[in-house]
Amino acid sequence: MKFSPLVDELIQSLRCLPGVGPKSAQRMAFHLLERGRPAGKALADVMGRAMSEVGHCRSCRTFTEQELCPICDSSRRGKSDTICVVETPADVLAIEAGGHFSGRYFVLLGHLSPLDGVGPEELGLSLLEEHLAGGEVSELILATNPTVEGDATAHYIADIARRYQINISRIAHGVPVGGELEYVDSTTLALAFTGRQSL
Amino acid sequence: MKFSPLVDELIQSLRCLPGVGPKSAQRMAFHLLERGRPAGKALADVMGRAMSEVGHCRSCRTFTEQELCPICDSSRRGKSDTICVVETPADVLAIEAGGHFSGRYFVLLGHLSPLDGVGPEELGLSLLEEHLAGGEVSELILATNPTVEGDATAHYIADIARRYQINISRIAHGVPVGGELEYVDSTTLALAFTGRQSL
Ligand SMILES: [Zn+2]
Ligand SMILES: [Zn+2]
Repeated sequence: MKFSPLVDELIQSLRCLPGVGPKSAQRMAFHLLERGRPAGKALADVMGRAMSEVGHCRSCRTFTEQELCPICDSSRRGKSDTICVVETPADVLAIEAGGHFSGRYFVLLGHLSPLDGVGPEELGLSLLEEHLAGGEVSELILATNPTVEGDATAHYIADIARRYQINISRIAHGVPVGGELEYVDSTTLALAFTGRQSL
Repeated sequence: MKFSPLVDELIQSLRCLPGVGPKSAQRMAFHLLERGRPAGKALADVMGRAMSEVGHCRSCRTFTEQELCPICDSSRRGKSDTICVVETPADVLAIEAGGHFSGRYFVLLGHLSPLDGVGPEELGLSLLEEHLAGGEVSELILATNPTVEGDATAHYIADIARRYQINISRIAHGVPVGGELEYVDSTTLALAFTGRQSL
């Protein structure tokens, strides 16, 4: 025991946050105790409520404490006929930050990974199929990550979607705009060549 | 609003932690919601309790939720006649990690900084003087930081301690053991020369 039990416990507990080692946990604890008590109290309160109240959107599975997330609940986007399938809620944020997509999302909360016990049911694919079967969707954009698992997941979902009258596409992978060729990894470069388009 | 209100609020609140920007706050929130709910609940609970229950040791001013911190409360160290004066509780940890000091501490929780309204009273110097006046202390080691403010604070405290029969010392500043001269900053190097000892 380095300090009194409660201070030690605070330092220890902060390490559940990703990227927080012993040193930063200590720095965070001291910062809160020294100069951030009101903010620390507020954080403790909202964290406690979020851990118990935040569930998943009934339509797209992203995080929300409501029945529907703001996008699914919006009159403009909630009934869009275009669904973009992503692996995580963070992917939704990244695409929203771009501001070019105005359809709705379906969040898998992972990718197919049989060894870890993640199959179609864990990814909510029967819920996705309900959307497709409802006749409300005309295009499905597969934006899973360009990894072995992400690709496998995209193909699995494409196979399901082919049973319905739906356009299926996969987002393009290649050299990022403004990126310099020499700094792009070889897999991305290979994808950029495979996906080349005639001018 | 990017997500539902509670998720947004969690991301926003996490930014009160030092070194946590918008991206890491988001990553932390998603990590807790996806895979760390029990740990997040426990963290929220201990953080809430720490913010309201942790106060200061009645004898040395370090953080504790008890009347005395473990060091002041220990029969071996709590009555030590050597007191080491440091600026922060983190300094206590750093010295304890070294394991060479077996006296007790006095934690200023800052340094003299008149412009910020930090004077002798804010640093608890009347409490320190009570210890010195009690005749229980024979050596005072000043381990404030080697900065302008830390030096000024050390001199101010030394002036108080001189009124009593007490040995006063300042920890040595110089080239770190294992450090290479060419990488040591010039102020440290100057201190190393000033503090040279004859062999
Ligand atoms: Zn939704
Ligand atoms: Zn103490």
